Amino acid sequence: MKKLALLLTASFAAGPLVAAENIQLPAPDRKGGIPLMQALEQRKTIRAYSEREIPMQTVSNLLWAASGVNRPDGRMTAPTARNLQEISLYVLLPSGIFRYDAQGNRLIRVSGENITGRVTGKAPMTVVYVADLKKQPKRELCAVDCGYISQNIYLYCASAGLGTVVRGSFDRSFTGKLNLPAGSEVFYIQSVGFPK
Amino acid sequence: MKKLALLLTASFAAGPLVAAENIQLPAPDRKGGIPLMQALEQRKTIRAYSEREIPMQTVSNLLWAASGVNRPDGRMTAPTARNLQEISLYVLLPSGIFRYDAQGNRLIRVSGENITGRVTGKAPMTVVYVADLKKQPKRELCAVDCGYISQNIYLYCASAGLGTVVRGSFDRSFTGKLNLPAGSEVFYIQSVGFPK
Repeated sequence: MKKLALLLTASFAAGPLVAAENIQLPAPDRKGGIPLMQALEQRKTIRAYSEREIPMQTVSNLLWAASGVNRPDGRMTAPTARNLQEISLYVLLPSGIFRYDAQGNRLIRVSGENITGRVTGKAPMTVVYVADLKKQPKRELCAVDCGYISQNIYLYCASAGLGTVVRGSFDRSFTGKLNLPAGSEVFYIQSVGFPK
Repeated sequence: MKKLALLLTASFAAGPLVAAENIQLPAPDRKGGIPLMQALEQRKTIRAYSEREIPMQTVSNLLWAASGVNRPDGRMTAPTARNLQEISLYVLLPSGIFRYDAQGNRLIRVSGENITGRVTGKAPMTVVYVADLKKQPKRELCAVDCGYISQNIYLYCASAGLGTVVRGSFDRSFTGKLNLPAGSEVFYIQSVGFPK
């Protein structure tokens, strides 16, 4: 009973403070966009971006397209082997570093630091692919599952007039700021921005 | 000169015969399909198919969506690391075993044998992902590049009312029939069919 009271106190004390720093995303657009074959026709890599920030509705659409929940049972727009859902998306924005909570359609704040200028061509948004190797120890399967998500982002960007590039080789010095749980590893990063 | 004559003779003798067995695909639809976000909303795995064959126009659309040429410089609907284009798609159809020639928009016949009944739930079409490990020796990068292509197929199937499932674990005894060049390896297979 004492333990429960303590837990409740801690929860009330910490809960609202943390919650206030998280971002509830607007509901993503699940109906629109350009026709699929046009998105495929226009899919390409764009490496230079303007400094214009990505509107939060676009952030929501992009993350839902990438790896959002598209069915009542929690299954997603991108498949994973045996539905392990071992890939988490972290997001670097001017307002901080976040983890995308797909089930809750929100951004969980990891840090308020703006490191967008330090990573990949000063893109105003960078998606970081983090694999939980405890859930899925086979690195090749983590990699293929990143590919599914990344192609969704490429196609969303083609549809929304955004530019994007995925990278496997990059300066990893920022990854310590993500406070990743043990057994998790950054596989790739993907920059997103309005084309310069 | 003798050599050239010999080459020409061999070419004339073998050329038309081989060409007659290849299939020039109809031009793919590069404009249509359902809106991208609806395709993402409807993306899912379907494992049971009817016996109905896939029309050749649909085969063409699907393969172009998967890994077709979408730019005059030969770049494709799916990215590959450093544009190495190390993934080839082989296709199992009732009419035989083929390699998809994206640049020529055609199917190169490997064999006339129908092995669709032997592979993954009797799907009328199976796409086989073959990585050229001489072009791209890093297996993880081959895997992620397969993911890009495979998601394109998932989304095309969602748009076209087809079912599909990708598999990493499967009976590999059929792969000898592909006559793969040395250094190439089958990574995954993806079944396609009209839902049962």
